[in-house]
Amino acid sequence: MRKIEHIGIAVKDIEASNLLFEKLFGAPAYKQEEVVSEGVKTSFFRNGPNKIELLEATNPESSIAKFIEKKGEGIHHIAFDVQDIVLEIERLKKEGFIVLNEIPKRGADNKLVAFLHPKSTNGVLIELCQEII
Amino acid sequence: MRKIEHIGIAVKDIEASNLLFEKLFGAPAYKQEEVVSEGVKTSFFRNGPNKIELLEATNPESSIAKFIEKKGEGIHHIAFDVQDIVLEIERLKKEGFIVLNEIPKRGADNKLVAFLHPKSTNGVLIELCQEII
Repeated sequence: MRKIEHIGIAVKDIEASNLLFEKLFGAPAYKQEEVVSEGVKTSFFRNGPNKIELLEATNPESSIAKFIEKKGEGIHHIAFDVQDIVLEIERLKKEGFIVLNEIPKRGADNKLVAFLHPKSTNGVLIELCQEII
Repeated sequence: MRKIEHIGIAVKDIEASNLLFEKLFGAPAYKQEEVVSEGVKTSFFRNGPNKIELLEATNPESSIAKFIEKKGEGIHHIAFDVQDIVLEIERLKKEGFIVLNEIPKRGADNKLVAFLHPKSTNGVLIELCQEII
């Protein structure tokens, strides 16, 4: 784990939230992307070496829709940048963490991603992500 | 805002969580500190340019105790590193954000800090922090 790649924030209305975070950072989102397989629209803001990802559900079955229903808008996950996601999954499994998808899947922003179950990480949904080169 | 300075995670038992995050990052906390005014014990882990702060309440009136009671363990706040916290508070107030303490206060890890109200930031508790030189 080399740095916080991004923090994912669940929002109800991504267009309104884009304006809010543009005011916060003083610069607009540099990318917007829909991830159909996850049922989300996303937008990304840069903040030095890190990013903020906003996520809006595109259907009621999306994990983002369920999260907002249960907890309201707010921080959804932390994503850490890893050099080799397969090795990192192996290492973390041996340490006792519960990996939700042992085979990395394609996520937003040109990444291979895997998630750790919050019940093994103090209630924090952790994403590992590796840039696809 | 120059980078994510740290992410604050509310935990029930900081000693147990220290071991958990040591396994996650492959390295132990580099600092532990009690902030009596906030009713918290904290520990800090480095992750490249960023940090993770664990927070355990030391009394039931602590905002961390109340957070855990309401939402359970998990991500409590995002802290952004700022160069001049007074100017940043002024800028954000003009943009319509609600600043919880308009006069920066002393936080953990040798920082001046101020918080933005989550109701003005999509449910995200945002901390501004400036290193005290």
